[in-house]
Amino acid sequence: MKTRERNYTKELLLVALGGNALIRKGQSGTIEEQFQNLSVPLRQIARLSKQYKIIITHGNGPQVGNLLLQQECCDATPRLPLEILVAQTQGQIGYMIESTLDNELMKLGLDVEQYFVTLLSYVVVDENDPAFKNPSKPIGPVFSEETAASLPYRTIMTPKGFRRVVASPKPITIVEKREIKKLIDLGFIVIACGGGGIPVIRDGRAFEGVDAVIDKDLASAKLGEEVGADIFLIATDVVGVAISYGRPNQKFLRTLTLAQAATFMQEGEFSSGSMSPKVEAAMQFLQKGGKRAVIASIEHIEKAVAGEAGTEIIK
Amino acid sequence: MKTRERNYTKELLLVALGGNALIRKGQSGTIEEQFQNLSVPLRQIARLSKQYKIIITHGNGPQVGNLLLQQECCDATPRLPLEILVAQTQGQIGYMIESTLDNELMKLGLDVEQYFVTLLSYVVVDENDPAFKNPSKPIGPVFSEETAASLPYRTIMTPKGFRRVVASPKPITIVEKREIKKLIDLGFIVIACGGGGIPVIRDGRAFEGVDAVIDKDLASAKLGEEVGADIFLIATDVVGVAISYGRPNQKFLRTLTLAQAATFMQEGEFSSGSMSPKVEAAMQFLQKGGKRAVIASIEHIEKAVAGEAGTEIIK
Repeated sequence: MKTRERNYTKELLLVALGGNALIRKGQSGTIEEQFQNLSVPLRQIARLSKQYKIIITHGNGPQVGNLLLQQECCDATPRLPLEILVAQTQGQIGYMIESTLDNELMKLGLDVEQYFVTLLSYVVVDENDPAFKNPSKPIGPVFSEETAASLPYRTIMTPKGFRRVVASPKPITIVEKREIKKLIDLGFIVIACGGGGIPVIRDGRAFEGVDAVIDKDLASAKLGEEVGADIFLIATDVVGVAISYGRPNQKFLRTLTLAQAATFMQEGEFSSGSMSPKVEAAMQFLQKGGKRAVIASIEHIEKAVAGEAGTEIIK
Repeated sequence: MKTRERNYTKELLLVALGGNALIRKGQSGTIEEQFQNLSVPLRQIARLSKQYKIIITHGNGPQVGNLLLQQECCDATPRLPLEILVAQTQGQIGYMIESTLDNELMKLGLDVEQYFVTLLSYVVVDENDPAFKNPSKPIGPVFSEETAASLPYRTIMTPKGFRRVVASPKPITIVEKREIKKLIDLGFIVIACGGGGIPVIRDGRAFEGVDAVIDKDLASAKLGEEVGADIFLIATDVVGVAISYGRPNQKFLRTLTLAQAATFMQEGEFSSGSMSPKVEAAMQFLQKGGKRAVIASIEHIEKAVAGEAGTEIIK
């Protein structure tokens, strides 16, 4: 009876794993490295599964980049649209997370009772999202100016060289939210919204895949809102949110109110491709009724959940 | 009350989709073609979902072949082990099936009530399976003899040229059988065991991915056995099982007893890479307690379920 009551009141924790959960700086990203890296967050998540219902989301930048690069190299295979490549990475990374999680649950003797499942996830975006008019998200390999000009894609100059650029529209709703909610209520650990989800637009009542990528933290915040997550933990490669990041007076913050966050955001304190969407995602989650949002290092997931590490965004 | 009773007694139908569900003979396999082809079986499966609980499994030959070919073309990306490529195709094809199924359910007004989900699936094989000593399954692109000699893989001469060869061990058990059973009981349509599943061996209690491929029909039969499927339908590119196939006296059979099947199998009536594993899978399913096993054309799925098309293997 006690156990049942405890299970019933378990809070729902959503952990968004950043790219460094799989590939660390300076690594080429072999499969061995990726499995090894994954054990750091998943060991902690396995332990947390005793106290929380859990959803895991994840990025896919380097993995989808490799698939894009392979397509450029290889004329002999039909070119696949971006949403199919995202689906491929959901399969790949979902498998790697499941496999590592299974090992870590086993070490705790929890593998027999703890079910888990990876859900292929689509995320609806608005075809009128301004991002489609001004694609700004660079993805995949770096090209010379000459090669870039010959590609069937829009490219932009980045600090590394020319790269393909796609729209990064806002997530409107996660198509599989009902399925995910149902599985969570049954006690499954659910892996979902990989790479921000497969982007689709509504064509009448049907869904159509589109060439775009969705920010995985914004998609995770939306999922958290739609399934009623209590805690949203964004796990990344720094210990938390800093102001004056990278400058001599850099200062990591333990807490950040919504008002402060909005001010810092306006002042351009957070880098646009990296910390800014994380803070925005954390803010949105709280504004839509979430209880806690924390941005922390991948090494400190448990501590951050316990309120002992990371930056907690507070109402 | 009546509805509830009817739901409760719905039989479980497992449909194994052959490669031609996605790419037909003579097609290059563009994404448009694959989506179009998929609507043929999925339109029928959507209708069948009113009367049956449903599991869909599928092959991945051309898709995993393309990923292998891309890896050969592209030195810039780390080479991925075969089980990761299988995981990628489970994501890709799972998404394509879901997306098409959603459309077909929508046309019937069933999309709101009918949940469905793709499960990444591992299948345990025995590391002592004789297939590992004598790998015999050709996969992926065709190479010249010279290139083949320089590859880090074992290759064999095939009628098309040199190809990589891997082991095709027997499936022992589907790791996610409990999850699949649970989802089916809840009324989900489950897409699972894509490409025969991600092959793993047991290392103590843990699972290790291995370089192998599992026959998708044998994996499907095993899944059907383990989740208690009633009907096993193998959907392929011919109308059923024939004797003297491809010869002037070729004859398609409407029924085939287990004893006849065993005799024809011994006599080499069925081609080893194609019809033989299908008949073997159907036989195993029945021998392990399944009620009905039918091999039929992808166009005739509904008719075959109704007993009006295909070859029914009978006890």
